[in-house]
Amino acid sequence: MIYEKMSQATKTMKSSMIRELVASTKNIEGLISFAGGFPSPKTFPREILSKLYHDVVLNEGETILQYGGSQGDSLLATELLKWEGYDDLSTDQILITAGATNAIFYMCAALLEPGDVILCEAPSFLGSLVGFEAMGAELHAIPLDQEGLDMDALGTKVEKLKKAGKRIKFIYTIPDFHNPTGVTMSLQRRKKLIEFALAMEIPILEDNPYAQLRYSGESLPSLFRVAHDEYSNTEIVTEVVTFSKILGPGMRLGYVKGSKVLIERMCSWQQKVNIAPDNVSQRVAARFLIEGHMQPHLESIRSFYQPYLEKMLKCMADYLPSYIQYSKPEGGIFTWLWLPEDMSADLLFEQAKAHKVTFIPGSKFYPVGQEKFNCLRLNFSYSSLEQIDQGMQSLGKLMEDFYT
Amino acid sequence: MIYEKMSQATKTMKSSMIRELVASTKNIEGLISFAGGFPSPKTFPREILSKLYHDVVLNEGETILQYGGSQGDSLLATELLKWEGYDDLSTDQILITAGATNAIFYMCAALLEPGDVILCEAPSFLGSLVGFEAMGAELHAIPLDQEGLDMDALGTKVEKLKKAGKRIKFIYTIPDFHNPTGVTMSLQRRKKLIEFALAMEIPILEDNPYAQLRYSGESLPSLFRVAHDEYSNTEIVTEVVTFSKILGPGMRLGYVKGSKVLIERMCSWQQKVNIAPDNVSQRVAARFLIEGHMQPHLESIRSFYQPYLEKMLKCMADYLPSYIQYSKPEGGIFTWLWLPEDMSADLLFEQAKAHKVTFIPGSKFYPVGQEKFNCLRLNFSYSSLEQIDQGMQSLGKLMEDFYT
Repeated sequence: MIYEKMSQATKTMKSSMIRELVASTKNIEGLISFAGGFPSPKTFPREILSKLYHDVVLNEGETILQYGGSQGDSLLATELLKWEGYDDLSTDQILITAGATNAIFYMCAALLEPGDVILCEAPSFLGSLVGFEAMGAELHAIPLDQEGLDMDALGTKVEKLKKAGKRIKFIYTIPDFHNPTGVTMSLQRRKKLIEFALAMEIPILEDNPYAQLRYSGESLPSLFRVAHDEYSNTEIVTEVVTFSKILGPGMRLGYVKGSKVLIERMCSWQQKVNIAPDNVSQRVAARFLIEGHMQPHLESIRSFYQPYLEKMLKCMADYLPSYIQYSKPEGGIFTWLWLPEDMSADLLFEQAKAHKVTFIPGSKFYPVGQEKFNCLRLNFSYSSLEQIDQGMQSLGKLMEDFYT
Repeated sequence: MIYEKMSQATKTMKSSMIRELVASTKNIEGLISFAGGFPSPKTFPREILSKLYHDVVLNEGETILQYGGSQGDSLLATELLKWEGYDDLSTDQILITAGATNAIFYMCAALLEPGDVILCEAPSFLGSLVGFEAMGAELHAIPLDQEGLDMDALGTKVEKLKKAGKRIKFIYTIPDFHNPTGVTMSLQRRKKLIEFALAMEIPILEDNPYAQLRYSGESLPSLFRVAHDEYSNTEIVTEVVTFSKILGPGMRLGYVKGSKVLIERMCSWQQKVNIAPDNVSQRVAARFLIEGHMQPHLESIRSFYQPYLEKMLKCMADYLPSYIQYSKPEGGIFTWLWLPEDMSADLLFEQAKAHKVTFIPGSKFYPVGQEKFNCLRLNFSYSSLEQIDQGMQSLGKLMEDFYT
């Protein structure tokens, strides 16, 4: 009986197909996995966190175990603005949320009517795409090049959609160590994108989980930072940051910065959806910042991941056939392979599974009906250095054998 | 610019007016407050929790700080079913959520299309009402009597709505120590309600935050329990329980039991909204149960609150004019006053504020346009015994003076 009562959106809602793919390889003994997107549990600062959790609950429990404000812990908000170096922003331009996905959900809840358009990168983070679709958005994918969003394609698409009378609600982008491709948007491109967005009055949703995970090269300012510093604008970009790749995703902690009016409405949704984020993990994160653990911890994470990225880059150079192209990121946790037009990564996935190697076929990262099949994502933060070597050797061999 | 992009629901969304009311009394020195709905921070088991947080993060951090499943911690789910004594339910009939409000939100997300009807008690919990309205539901209020929902009024209303071609999605009820009235639904009424719901095929959403807070008298089975035990049905009632009044609302932890198909779809929404509840607080709660802390802790909470309820009952009997009627709960944290028809609690609120006493006028607990003004809610879990005496004395005096 209850199924018949469900809303149409709920009846047709999709789950992340990646989950099912990963589940299909779960019981393979000795599997080498490049599939996941999880941070390494070895990077979680368990000892510091366990002490902070203890002290916060024991000493501040009377207030911290109580209901907290929907806008989040004001101590944490203040510390975050300080840490990021925004002296001129007030805490009503930041909202603490139960992770980045939660912040993205509130952005959608605040803006979307069914049929509204979201422009996203192609490929993009599947978790966001299925969320957008569940909220009734129409997704239009804009191709990426080595510098990020293809601005010509974006311009053409926007013109077409406007002519068709569509309401474009925002552009969704992951400018740093993009998931799934590993590509980082160039500074030049960031400026162009902001100028375009300002001219067209299309907000940008910047998803920024990986910027802190840079192992070489020079950091680039976030889109929010560029808009703030160079265009004196804190409305055109809404930036979402998560602690999931820094402290641990199990804490469900993220935050979002944007215009006051938007943050206030997102907060109003938070009141109805979660009342407030977890107070305990919020205060633990605040103490982590106040006690000065963040900088040394970030340095230790970077040193931890760097050899894995280097190993992956070397293995791609050594083992992949010369006609395979790939991204060469300086951080994050993913690389991306472009295969020849006629090589299906979905087919390759099945062959690799039989050889105890797994990855995510690129087609999973596109909106339905806009898929490309000759591409795949490799994660390098989960397997050991030896496994990366062995797995990439197998994968290179499988690709060489693909045409025979 | 961003405001113009917002969805209609977001533009017109209301916040809880109680928040603003409480804020309006924030700076009154020496204020005696019967307004809040917060548990006493003295009931939070800080010492046990601080130790559990420490141990969970230190010893289980590699898995607990990692991403967890959207259905929640299976260890906690298993322990909860064991604790509640449901041997025959499987963990796919329970979903852990970020508090009760979060579970109620997923229920709405799973079922509601704009314009669908929710039947609620009048009065009812404002937090849920504003959530229902934000999700586009049309609220219809059913009066309460001393045994709970008025079944005749419910029958008439359902008939009328069905004739008008309305889709009724569920009945929202708080059967134990109801917020705001403190009324507990009788066993007889529980059975009648379930039989009615089964006959009419209208699901029941049972919000059950207070059942464990019984200080005298005999416990009644939840609606879910009655449907399970006496009608062999686990679909007609969806029961939401929270840890907020037991361990501490800052942990944001609740759970919901219901039919597999509904729980599965609510889980799918959880994946899109929060990915998963906080893993750390989930595992801490699981350890709290496993180590046997729950039973003694509940007993200590009950002994803690009992004198406050007794004091409030005595003060109402001693100080209120004889023409004021009130509920006489055996638990929970609220009592409710029915005033003479021509006595406005909103007016009384302003007078009481001037005399440094505060409460919530009853009108705030009704859907917009269906308000009653001659009623008010008193909380007895926040003020000291002396404050209860003093505040109730002032309130009684104000009521006596109301007509002079």
